[in-house]
Amino acid sequence: MMWGCVTDFFTYETTKSVVVKSWSVGIINRVVQLVIISYFVGWVFIHEKAYQVTENSVESSVMTKVKGFGYQNNYVMDVADYVIPQQGAGIFCILTKVIITENQFQGTCPEYSKKYSCVQDKDCLQHIGNILSNGVITGVCLNSTIGNETEGRCESEGWCPAENDNVEVKPMLNVINFTIFIKNSVRFPLFDVTRGNFLSTMSRDEIRKCNYHPVDSPFCPIFNVGDILNYTNQDLETLANKGGEIGINVQWKCNLDYDIENCVPRYSFTRLDKPFEKNAISNGYNFRFAKYYMTENGTEFRTLHKAYAIRFDVMVTGKAGKFDTIPTLINLVAAFTSVGLGTVLCDIILLNCLKGAEQYKAKKFEEVSDAQIEASLAHSPVSQLSLKGGIKSSYDSGAISLATSDQAM
Amino acid sequence: MMWGCVTDFFTYETTKSVVVKSWSVGIINRVVQLVIISYFVGWVFIHEKAYQVTENSVESSVMTKVKGFGYQNNYVMDVADYVIPQQGAGIFCILTKVIITENQFQGTCPEYSKKYSCVQDKDCLQHIGNILSNGVITGVCLNSTIGNETEGRCESEGWCPAENDNVEVKPMLNVINFTIFIKNSVRFPLFDVTRGNFLSTMSRDEIRKCNYHPVDSPFCPIFNVGDILNYTNQDLETLANKGGEIGINVQWKCNLDYDIENCVPRYSFTRLDKPFEKNAISNGYNFRFAKYYMTENGTEFRTLHKAYAIRFDVMVTGKAGKFDTIPTLINLVAAFTSVGLGTVLCDIILLNCLKGAEQYKAKKFEEVSDAQIEASLAHSPVSQLSLKGGIKSSYDSGAISLATSDQAM
Amino acid sequence: MMWGCVTDFFTYETTKSVVVKSWSVGIINRVVQLVIISYFVGWVFIHEKAYQVTENSVESSVMTKVKGFGYQNNYVMDVADYVIPQQGAGIFCILTKVIITENQFQGTCPEYSKKYSCVQDKDCLQHIGNILSNGVITGVCLNSTIGNETEGRCESEGWCPAENDNVEVKPMLNVINFTIFIKNSVRFPLFDVTRGNFLSTMSRDEIRKCNYHPVDSPFCPIFNVGDILNYTNQDLETLANKGGEIGINVQWKCNLDYDIENCVPRYSFTRLDKPFEKNAISNGYNFRFAKYYMTENGTEFRTLHKAYAIRFDVMVTGKAGKFDTIPTLINLVAAFTSVGLGTVLCDIILLNCLKGAEQYKAKKFEEVSDAQIEASLAHSPVSQLSLKGGIKSSYDSGAISLATSDQAM
Repeated sequence: MMWGCVTDFFTYETTKSVVVKSWSVGIINRVVQLVIISYFVGWVFIHEKAYQVTENSVESSVMTKVKGFGYQNNYVMDVADYVIPQQGAGIFCILTKVIITENQFQGTCPEYSKKYSCVQDKDCLQHIGNILSNGVITGVCLNSTIGNETEGRCESEGWCPAENDNVEVKPMLNVINFTIFIKNSVRFPLFDVTRGNFLSTMSRDEIRKCNYHPVDSPFCPIFNVGDILNYTNQDLETLANKGGEIGINVQWKCNLDYDIENCVPRYSFTRLDKPFEKNAISNGYNFRFAKYYMTENGTEFRTLHKAYAIRFDVMVTGKAGKFDTIPTLINLVAAFTSVGLGTVLCDIILLNCLKGAEQYKAKKFEEVSDAQIEASLAHSPVSQLSLKGGIKSSYDSGAISLATSDQAM
Repeated sequence: MMWGCVTDFFTYETTKSVVVKSWSVGIINRVVQLVIISYFVGWVFIHEKAYQVTENSVESSVMTKVKGFGYQNNYVMDVADYVIPQQGAGIFCILTKVIITENQFQGTCPEYSKKYSCVQDKDCLQHIGNILSNGVITGVCLNSTIGNETEGRCESEGWCPAENDNVEVKPMLNVINFTIFIKNSVRFPLFDVTRGNFLSTMSRDEIRKCNYHPVDSPFCPIFNVGDILNYTNQDLETLANKGGEIGINVQWKCNLDYDIENCVPRYSFTRLDKPFEKNAISNGYNFRFAKYYMTENGTEFRTLHKAYAIRFDVMVTGKAGKFDTIPTLINLVAAFTSVGLGTVLCDIILLNCLKGAEQYKAKKFEEVSDAQIEASLAHSPVSQLSLKGGIKSSYDSGAISLATSDQAM
Repeated sequence: MMWGCVTDFFTYETTKSVVVKSWSVGIINRVVQLVIISYFVGWVFIHEKAYQVTENSVESSVMTKVKGFGYQNNYVMDVADYVIPQQGAGIFCILTKVIITENQFQGTCPEYSKKYSCVQDKDCLQHIGNILSNGVITGVCLNSTIGNETEGRCESEGWCPAENDNVEVKPMLNVINFTIFIKNSVRFPLFDVTRGNFLSTMSRDEIRKCNYHPVDSPFCPIFNVGDILNYTNQDLETLANKGGEIGINVQWKCNLDYDIENCVPRYSFTRLDKPFEKNAISNGYNFRFAKYYMTENGTEFRTLHKAYAIRFDVMVTGKAGKFDTIPTLINLVAAFTSVGLGTVLCDIILLNCLKGAEQYKAKKFEEVSDAQIEASLAHSPVSQLSLKGGIKSSYDSGAISLATSDQAM
């Protein structure tokens, strides 16, 4: 009994096939197979690299350094003046135009803008709670000297005098000559691969003197601001006047099956506020900051800066791929199975469109109906028994032996 | 010979099938197939969109602008005073309470806290090397005037006088009326799609005047701080007093198979230090910074600020999906194969549970044993030869023709 | 007619199989199946967790706090002095050496560096437009007192006097005793799971007093700078002198099928500028910033700081996995199909290498050729008709019934 189970277990089962020696179906069959195989080999495996496991998340560290001098309000501005924040972060601003309101002390004073003009105190009541003013609107109407004339303006409490940001200030166009040095190191945690954005073959002097160019010098980490504006089709004067945001994309696309020295960055540049062009709002980029001072007698005062700046965002994206058994296997199995699915098409042609389709059907299909079974059960109990002895109860069919072999044991 | 190989190659092979005309198995078979197909169509393809390739990593650039006025220490604070860092980054703090220690000069002075009380110098030896004090503990015990009394305190070297951060300061509750404007542009590098967080149909004025509301105005980029506190169930006074971290999630979930105008952000708000509630530590958020001044004779002094702040983290996550042949194909193949696996179940039922199972087995399985082969080899060499001539050596079986066709050629 | 279609539809079709009772092929078959099953169970499912859907992108918020005192230029520096930016961001710098140029006013003055030495004005023409100088080179040669000697130096316009960054300054070695406290909360948006980097079992006091150690105290969020330098094999003095970048990786690897309390961070430390070691450039990290003051009569002047700093980047990566039906199903189907593909190998052996291969072929393959079909079509129209009545036109073959059943209806 036990031995019977063992011999049953170690049988091999394979499908019975019908071989059709027909040129038409034969050629269609092979062509369909060829198309499927070409698709998998050419597109899935070679082009899409489906044999690789890929990692999209990358640990990245960016350090930047800006160099250059510019003129603003008759001052020579150097890096410590125009770069914010100063510590060389991946996101930094270069101030291009600064509207300065000097010697602001805490107190009350009239607003500057025409929006807040008034004749009586009650004209100012509507502005109470306004957050776009220069300070807290008190609801009092004051006489204010604007230019040479005296006009009524609502009083506000806060840093006084109020800022007038409607003055014309010449932007710092020298920004076009500034250079940005970018040091970027990335790590793909899945593969534990670390890369830096300089080629290891570049010497210290080569790096210092180079200037990025997409074709001639694609691995140089020093970027000229003027070049970046060109690549993004920006007009210097508009940008310097209104500010703006420019993205410097550092894209790592690494095939780790090859030499790691081929894992190099590619730089691209975009105007980040482009999606907002359709809305007229917020063309540009500006922010306010203050420098604080103290008088001899200990009163704090400040200089308010409304700074228009070009903000650079160094954005690093990475994708690394490396051969791995799991995706390879799953895609191979998909490929094999797809080739098998080609038979579906050929069966349809063979059994329906071809001359002699009925003969093929007769060959391919064997029929057994409830009626036949009933009949054989009723009339030949002997043959049933002989079958029992001969075949036993546990044949499984190739592709599905995993599940059916359970019942065999 | 050559011609023989060619004709062999262009044969078509299909599996021989047994057709069972039985209502019970037939219905089970179709029901199983229906279930599998419904699962794939309904869940895998329609719900989980398995026909799409998805991208999770997104390039994002965030710009923020805060507006509003608040009172702190009898000062009117404006944006330049209470937002750190000032340049409108994606992570920014709004100072809500500031404890100011004015006129600190370098020198030695007694500590302030009771922890450092002493009678003799040796009481202070234990504090040497302490990093929680206000300066470097020198190991000397000084008399110090705390309030109206004179007590012993250990001397420390550094910025003097020492900070007393136990004073009661009224927090800046006006923060509830502040507004935060968020400009976010994202790019999905895989699909090269760029989107901004305003609807392109919104005009400049619509954006300026709107106020975010999850239902009424879900695409307005201006957020009221009070509303955000409500959404996250925070108590204004506690938060303003102790500081805290609030996350503003901007979630992009885009189906790029549809019109790109449907690719819009969804905002949500969380208290980021929630996971730390169980540990009593670090409820809140504060940091110290200083403003530096110089006396007439060139000595530097500073005003130390211990700032309690609400930190806002604008966190952008994105996921975009688009139809792609590879996942579609792999999932289609998986679907087809799964349908095929349905036969496993039906075979088990047919060959074991049904009346007439043995007859079905006899129909499905054809047996060939070593013994039979031995016998035929021994007695009929002729038939063997005729077989050789007739069938040749290279039939492959549909689904697996890729591998076996190699041996055929 | 309609009824005929229905009965045809509810037929069940299964492949006809040949059962080979041969020990050799039987054993090979089962061994191949065993290998494939072991691979899938052991590697794909248990080791690689192919039954899980994984999320790599994580929303993370980092708050840091540094403690400690150091000496620099005879000053005691505290957190407000040496940490930039001060608000406890995920990327922060600890200044370790500061070269100070005091009392800079706008004006013109001679350059300091020997590079700009000159005898006549025309020696300076070559330097015009230089961006590495201290200011805008005017093209004039001035006499300058360097040390005790008078030498010619090109004049530059900007903040004067020019910086001399070649002075020897003792770095702040006390940095070795500083501690960094890291508060990190992460969220996996796909699973909506939020975690903090303290164990919920740690009390406030435990956290305050602990000190991170990879083995003894791996979940303590307080890191000693000296320890970090040790873990990354950095020399304190070199690092403090030249500056550098150190990465603190917080790695979340969570199996959400288990208790969420097992979802804990792992810390690791790397020197981020390591990939740049081969290029001699940029060993170290420094930046310039200025403190601005005002004289009594309202003239602005500044103190320029060239700061060498250790920059810490807290980089958070996360990966969470959770059981999901789709990957499970796809991998199960791949597993089943792979087991089926084992037949390919066994067929090759059976039909080619075994004694009696021709007999097996005769059993497995049934041949039908164009010629036969032609003959039967010509001579027996009766049998053809009987077939038509008997079998009808719509049997499909198990695995592919989805496609062929369309033609059946």
